Amino acid sequence: MPVNRQVTMAVRPVGEPKLTDFGIVDAQAPSPGPGQVLVKTLWLSLDPYMRGRMSEAKSYARSLQPGDVIVGGTVGQVEASNNNAFKPGDIVLGYAGWQGYYVTDGSDLRKIDPADAPIQSHLGALGMPGMTAYTGLLNIGQPKAGETVVVAAATGAVGALVGQIAKIRGARAVGIAGGPEKCKFLIDELGFDAAVDHRDPEMKAKLKAACPDGIDVYFENVGGAVWDAVFPLLNDFARIPLCGLIAHYNDTAVPEGPDRLPGLMRQALTKRLTLRGFIVSDFAADGPAFQRDMSQWIREGRIRYREDIVEGLDKAPEAFIGLLRGKNFGKLLVKVA
Amino acid sequence: MPVNRQVTMAVRPVGEPKLTDFGIVDAQAPSPGPGQVLVKTLWLSLDPYMRGRMSEAKSYARSLQPGDVIVGGTVGQVEASNNNAFKPGDIVLGYAGWQGYYVTDGSDLRKIDPADAPIQSHLGALGMPGMTAYTGLLNIGQPKAGETVVVAAATGAVGALVGQIAKIRGARAVGIAGGPEKCKFLIDELGFDAAVDHRDPEMKAKLKAACPDGIDVYFENVGGAVWDAVFPLLNDFARIPLCGLIAHYNDTAVPEGPDRLPGLMRQALTKRLTLRGFIVSDFAADGPAFQRDMSQWIREGRIRYREDIVEGLDKAPEAFIGLLRGKNFGKLLVKVA
Repeated sequence: MPVNRQVTMAVRPVGEPKLTDFGIVDAQAPSPGPGQVLVKTLWLSLDPYMRGRMSEAKSYARSLQPGDVIVGGTVGQVEASNNNAFKPGDIVLGYAGWQGYYVTDGSDLRKIDPADAPIQSHLGALGMPGMTAYTGLLNIGQPKAGETVVVAAATGAVGALVGQIAKIRGARAVGIAGGPEKCKFLIDELGFDAAVDHRDPEMKAKLKAACPDGIDVYFENVGGAVWDAVFPLLNDFARIPLCGLIAHYNDTAVPEGPDRLPGLMRQALTKRLTLRGFIVSDFAADGPAFQRDMSQWIREGRIRYREDIVEGLDKAPEAFIGLLRGKNFGKLLVKVA
Repeated sequence: MPVNRQVTMAVRPVGEPKLTDFGIVDAQAPSPGPGQVLVKTLWLSLDPYMRGRMSEAKSYARSLQPGDVIVGGTVGQVEASNNNAFKPGDIVLGYAGWQGYYVTDGSDLRKIDPADAPIQSHLGALGMPGMTAYTGLLNIGQPKAGETVVVAAATGAVGALVGQIAKIRGARAVGIAGGPEKCKFLIDELGFDAAVDHRDPEMKAKLKAACPDGIDVYFENVGGAVWDAVFPLLNDFARIPLCGLIAHYNDTAVPEGPDRLPGLMRQALTKRLTLRGFIVSDFAADGPAFQRDMSQWIREGRIRYREDIVEGLDKAPEAFIGLLRGKNFGKLLVKVA
């Protein structure tokens, strides 16, 4: 039996996760029982939502307990199968988590045709991050031609797609990212209309200059200082799809005042704002439309994406800590095998 | 020429308006020019949004300047007309503001048939407050049968209708109001399923007990402590139509911490909440449906309303200050003539 390397949450992180919060365990790979499939992990997706799973706070999914293998979307290869729907060699999208092997009854698996697109793209542009961008922007943001769409973490797996889909819909795309290299990439490679470096001390003024007609859609996936810069620029009837708050995932206490809640409510009223939180599964019905549109846009070269690849499960904790700090440049993936 | 008594904003209020912020001016009634109509005010509506007009803060409508007659919806009678669409004696809904007479080109007037309903009801259940309740609840709140709808200021002009429309749609209606008399009225007269007194020190616990299945729609028109009681009870996918923040209209400074904004955003994300600000004109297209449904519901006795009537324009400032303190019991109206 091969060794099944697993990365666990050894200790529940307090604030920013530390390397010592993670554990490396070498278990025996499991054997598939009746109806089950053994899948070998090839690619693991690292995504900010995983920080939420490490927290005890009530959320839309259950919390990890100390010792648990960390959850995550994966692309793998079927090694052995007692399930007629799968045969050894099949490439499958699944949810193995941070480990080299897992067994499943197959209900969470979707077969992938490697001829269609690089298999790991099903963890990025053609997968959950892509569908998050597509469904949140189109269902909640509803950008119209000529409107201004702002997205933060704009070179990230979701943000990069939000801006490009906004462009396809005829809107102006303004991206916020960390550092001049990422900002240049947004404009030169992804076709954003403007980019603002959130590390720039003049960020607020530069965002204002980049949005001369205000902001109609703010795709919120970070919170924190970016929110403060965006908020005064929102136009009447602006829409705010909210799918992440990476700036707050490591918060350990209620922030000090002043209390900005009444100000938000007052602006929401006078400007008639719409704020709506969502996760990708809320729009599961849009899956076929997303697959059709995104595949076509990638084929036509209208959507481009960048991957940031780390080799080996052992590197996943460090890479994940970097993701929460914005160190990744593109969709963060672990090449597991 | 008759005397035109006017109530002005003499001084811009800071915090809670004082009687000395208002001025009483006896002007000459104006004469209608070519194409114009002279209207004598019979009824003036007093509504919380007027506090916003007295503020300098940017909003969806322009601010009053010191010395201006205060704005407001009115029902009046045409006294003289140089406009073929109106003749003396016509009863009209208009926007005279806090004064006894005004001239208009008629573009803001709508003729009322006194045989249909009490004419002042066009300032309440059949007017702007009614349409605010109807459009906000149905378009944004979208209550479904069996869901729980909570509304504050529940005996007020808007809140009373929100609860009753929720009932018509098959939802459970929970009202929050100030004092046992108003709470009793909600249940005995308006048919709410439960009522909670916001002055009760146990308000949070009582609201929780009144909403055993959580809250699916919170029609927000007050803010403040009611928001804090409602917020933890919101269910996944709850909707929050936001049309007023009466608890904050007199705020003079950014409130002290803790900062509740990140908590709102986190809950909006994990619970997939929708918060949307609106004013009644955003749903102007729903006017005919509103008129049809509300008239029918009132005729059928399915919607009831209560009026709180003050006699004479001179009493308007005191009554308005009382409105912001929740002293009124029902739709607050000034009988002007």
